[in-house]
Amino acid sequence: MVGTGLLGASVGLALRRAGVEVQLSDVDEAALAEAVSRGAGEPRRPTSPDPRLVVVAVPPHLAGGVMAQSCVFPDATVTDVTSVKALPLQQALEEGGDASRIVGGHPLAGREISGPAAARVELFDDRAWVVTPGPASDPSRVQDVLDLVATCGAIPLTMAPDKHDRAVAITSHTPQVLSSLIAARLTEIDDESVAVSGQALKDMTRIAGSDARLWQSILSANAESVADVLDRLAADLAHVVSDLRSGSTLAVGDVLARGAEGRARVPGKHGDARAEFAVVPVIIQDRPGELGRLFAAMAALDVNLEDLRIDHVLGRQSGLVELFVRPLDADRLDASLRTLGFDVRS
Amino acid sequence: MVGTGLLGASVGLALRRAGVEVQLSDVDEAALAEAVSRGAGEPRRPTSPDPRLVVVAVPPHLAGGVMAQSCVFPDATVTDVTSVKALPLQQALEEGGDASRIVGGHPLAGREISGPAAARVELFDDRAWVVTPGPASDPSRVQDVLDLVATCGAIPLTMAPDKHDRAVAITSHTPQVLSSLIAARLTEIDDESVAVSGQALKDMTRIAGSDARLWQSILSANAESVADVLDRLAADLAHVVSDLRSGSTLAVGDVLARGAEGRARVPGKHGDARAEFAVVPVIIQDRPGELGRLFAAMAALDVNLEDLRIDHVLGRQSGLVELFVRPLDADRLDASLRTLGFDVRS
Repeated sequence: MVGTGLLGASVGLALRRAGVEVQLSDVDEAALAEAVSRGAGEPRRPTSPDPRLVVVAVPPHLAGGVMAQSCVFPDATVTDVTSVKALPLQQALEEGGDASRIVGGHPLAGREISGPAAARVELFDDRAWVVTPGPASDPSRVQDVLDLVATCGAIPLTMAPDKHDRAVAITSHTPQVLSSLIAARLTEIDDESVAVSGQALKDMTRIAGSDARLWQSILSANAESVADVLDRLAADLAHVVSDLRSGSTLAVGDVLARGAEGRARVPGKHGDARAEFAVVPVIIQDRPGELGRLFAAMAALDVNLEDLRIDHVLGRQSGLVELFVRPLDADRLDASLRTLGFDVRS
Repeated sequence: MVGTGLLGASVGLALRRAGVEVQLSDVDEAALAEAVSRGAGEPRRPTSPDPRLVVVAVPPHLAGGVMAQSCVFPDATVTDVTSVKALPLQQALEEGGDASRIVGGHPLAGREISGPAAARVELFDDRAWVVTPGPASDPSRVQDVLDLVATCGAIPLTMAPDKHDRAVAITSHTPQVLSSLIAARLTEIDDESVAVSGQALKDMTRIAGSDARLWQSILSANAESVADVLDRLAADLAHVVSDLRSGSTLAVGDVLARGAEGRARVPGKHGDARAEFAVVPVIIQDRPGELGRLFAAMAALDVNLEDLRIDHVLGRQSGLVELFVRPLDADRLDASLRTLGFDVRS
């Protein structure tokens, strides 16, 4: 394991859970010590045996070089966990890496916080992990990386590096840039104006608080694909602006329609298409035990909670809980909760 | 009450809750009948007494005309609930409305679904409701609208119409356009590529599923302010694209930094600045009673849940629940839940 940040240390924890011997290295000695103390593995020493698999968990702009260096172990399969795949592979080969032994990977897991202290053994459990063989990758090396994915509890998706990068440019990198661009507008208005906002603003700016240095590295490493997507988005945006200035709503309507169409394609729970559940809204008092009483009641009724949203309200210690349940459970739950004295608002 | 959609019918329900007599009208007879059957008020008839307050709850492009017509009742105060304030007021005055009696309003409440069937009596409870007097509004008429806000259970914010519209252009209308623009990109790639996505894409495209016709009306009514914001955003975006194409990350870094600064200004729970809570992650099985058992345990421990996130995972019937609690409660909760056999993953 090279690199003991959030992802590297979490891979170490997951491998140790499976009983795999893990050697850790990091140029940041404090990070290495933290990862060791959390049980992610032992520090690699000059006398350590050669690794059979090297997992490179460094930022994208360093990944290619480190993968090339890792090929010094003659029998090791080399992979990485960065969120950009084509450029690091190309750089690794330019710097003398062994094309047959390098097979990239990208676990679709992360947190808004970083560093080994944030590492979690279950970070990859049931998550997708994209494996991106290059044209010269040896099939047995691809299998080694698929085994790593399975050992970490994740679900493999196999995809060419270029295709992966075009996908994440749309599904991850463009949303990141746009979240920052939307949040940046909030620096232009006073507090009173910022207060005129709701859940949509929170959702749309949440990721604008992510690690800026890491994102500079990611965006640079996937610059061409991201720029292509942003160009198409900017063209749509220009149509919307000229529409608004001219008093028409043709382009606005077109963008809203295409947006709704795209939205319908976003994977929902359990990777399936967005299921539709019934919603039972309940007002709760924001005090210890109130949610416990609610969920205990649901358990007694044998109603499964498919999802829920808690919406705290402005200025008072109370909140709206929206219980998402199967439609056939909704009426029974609604009636029973009312009988139990809950403030159901459907 | 003119207009018995989601907002109109919800205002009716809230006023009825307070014992206020409500007359309803709507050009859509089915919507009117639904609102009446839900208890939002009685249909207005030619013989009904003149209303003291008219609440206009129609889309923005119709609000000005309907407010002007509503001034036919000589003693009535006239308000609306549309999310754009300057243009409807201007149109109302151009069409002969009484400037002293018209005082606009905008409750910061809504749902992703619309129509009277979605109406809820508590929709406005503890929500902000912006009241936007014009320069000629009579103070006693402003007080009438403030009384309406209080009767509906909401918290009033007073602001000039122009300032309101510049604020929502940034906090609401621009995020809506950008969510659609991001979601529209998903129509350009195949299913396999869409699957390479996570929570960020879900958050950033959620509102792209909103009512397109309503949003065309809203964006048209606030066209100039929205276009101004989108122009500034497009200028930032152009810098990012040229940065990415040229191999620099200067503009990217600047946008990420300003985004983080703006993000920090987003109001959090109870209208305060985003509080920082400790997070206790627990893996639960997705079966009836599991959440109930967890929350009952928290209740027994007398730990208050400040917020929570449920993260369902791909392909399996289990999920990660992140419990947000006060930092001083976190260690105790963590240890106690482990003792009770919960799969705590911190």
